[in-house]
Amino acid sequence: VTRSTRQLTGPARIAVDLLGGDHAPAVVVDGALIACSADPDLRLVLVGPTSVADEVLAALSAADRSRMSVARATRSADRPLRAARPGTTVGAAVDAVLRGDADALVSAGDSGATVTAAVLGLGRAVRRPPLAAMLPGLDGPVVLLDVGASVDPSPPVLVQHAVLGAAYAGAVLGLEHPRVGLLSIGTEADKGDRWRRTAHGRLALIKLPSGAQFVGNVEGYDVSRGARADVVVTDGFTGNVLLKGVEAAYVLAGGEMSADTAPRAAALLGTGGTVIVCHGEATGPDVASGIELAAQLHRLGATARLGRSEVII
Amino acid sequence: VTRSTRQLTGPARIAVDLLGGDHAPAVVVDGALIACSADPDLRLVLVGPTSVADEVLAALSAADRSRMSVARATRSADRPLRAARPGTTVGAAVDAVLRGDADALVSAGDSGATVTAAVLGLGRAVRRPPLAAMLPGLDGPVVLLDVGASVDPSPPVLVQHAVLGAAYAGAVLGLEHPRVGLLSIGTEADKGDRWRRTAHGRLALIKLPSGAQFVGNVEGYDVSRGARADVVVTDGFTGNVLLKGVEAAYVLAGGEMSADTAPRAAALLGTGGTVIVCHGEATGPDVASGIELAAQLHRLGATARLGRSEVII
Repeated sequence: VTRSTRQLTGPARIAVDLLGGDHAPAVVVDGALIACSADPDLRLVLVGPTSVADEVLAALSAADRSRMSVARATRSADRPLRAARPGTTVGAAVDAVLRGDADALVSAGDSGATVTAAVLGLGRAVRRPPLAAMLPGLDGPVVLLDVGASVDPSPPVLVQHAVLGAAYAGAVLGLEHPRVGLLSIGTEADKGDRWRRTAHGRLALIKLPSGAQFVGNVEGYDVSRGARADVVVTDGFTGNVLLKGVEAAYVLAGGEMSADTAPRAAALLGTGGTVIVCHGEATGPDVASGIELAAQLHRLGATARLGRSEVII
Repeated sequence: VTRSTRQLTGPARIAVDLLGGDHAPAVVVDGALIACSADPDLRLVLVGPTSVADEVLAALSAADRSRMSVARATRSADRPLRAARPGTTVGAAVDAVLRGDADALVSAGDSGATVTAAVLGLGRAVRRPPLAAMLPGLDGPVVLLDVGASVDPSPPVLVQHAVLGAAYAGAVLGLEHPRVGLLSIGTEADKGDRWRRTAHGRLALIKLPSGAQFVGNVEGYDVSRGARADVVVTDGFTGNVLLKGVEAAYVLAGGEMSADTAPRAAALLGTGGTVIVCHGEATGPDVASGIELAAQLHRLGATARLGRSEVII
């Protein structure tokens, strides 16, 4: 059993939202160039204004330039509702996937807008598609989901997150029997709020994909330590707060959450395509890490494998 | 304006639960000895079996031994409901405060049991007394509450936490205009779940104690960075998960959350006494830090000042 993300090769065409993120387009251009130079099989669909796409093209050799195509779009969707409007970069990136011009998309724009555009354009297999982050646990990567796609803590949603998280850990981390934990405030089954207590009872009864086993409640520690679970399930409110708190703590303690240990981007699970969300404050290397994650998920056939996992619910 | 906890002197009599915590009594004995040696004005009421109290007494000089008294109790309350039974150490510690034999109590036992014992014995000024932790933010300590006394995220409870947190920051950190933030998943007022959105509207309208100002939503980062708020308000589920995640991240990143920067213990606010909860996994220095926090709160008259803050709601 390997505990790290597997590096695969093979063609992968990734649509990149040039206008997404607080520091776009500069960091996205950086990220695209870093990703291209690291992965010779990668092809990018640059989604944004022609002037920004030209900046990427100008920095590349003629040979590398042939790996690029451009999809023109002129404005970013900075709020979820704007994702439904025509002409946004994230909407055009979704269209590129829908048309078959790209295998996956990456955006560091407003995550609500990316989720909305993906659900509208690609469809969804679950009511609340979760964002799955990967944290560098002491014993290996830990998948944490949801980290902010929705804030619904209801038991059916938590159970769906567990199913998708188990399938994701199987597909991406190559784990044969991932351990799935429910994030709570104590390890006993009766700890937590009423949603967690109900979800705990249901998770103990169902069969999870990837031969996963439900290990019961885990705590905030466990997303960093990684000793008790490979997948940590929670609602998008708690997961978002926890991820940001842990990230800042790593930085302040003098460490960092390096893309070498775990991708600095989250995967949207349970839609009809492969969608990667980078943080709004993403740096160039973070965006590159998101592009590489998108390519890996495509190469692993992760979206198709997650789609099949749905029948188990 | 000072941004660190003020070190005061003067008599303080602290009841210490010798049986509380995963590694009791050893770490509690350690903590008691460390605290006594660091603070000559401290007096302790050792609450537990005679054999354990004798261990502390044997390690002290005759002069220091005169600073100790013993309240005998033979069993720990390892579950909240057991706190109501007679003969528990945490119940006996509450009794010591009630009788006026101690000014405050410290326990590293089950925090639910300590909260129950405190509410039953000392009374409460608010419906859900929160546990307030202090984290070592980059710019100074950050008060985070609730970190696990209850899991109720309803807007009236969040508003009460904000009031108590503001009063606590004023009394303990000496801040004249503490900045109070509501923990959410984005800085805009409409980010978060329905409870946060409602609480945000109410917090924008009320007058907080200590001249505090409501700065709106803050994010997971802000409990470590400290740049945006001195007090971070959330429900006990989210706060507990976040605190544990941040603690583990500090340790794994090679740093630590030192008692020099912020106490390694949480204060239960809104009851009729001064009550400090240490983590179940607390070490000796952590317990000592909790005892010192209890002494400081007593010396500052914090409980009385927080009691007065209630009228503002």
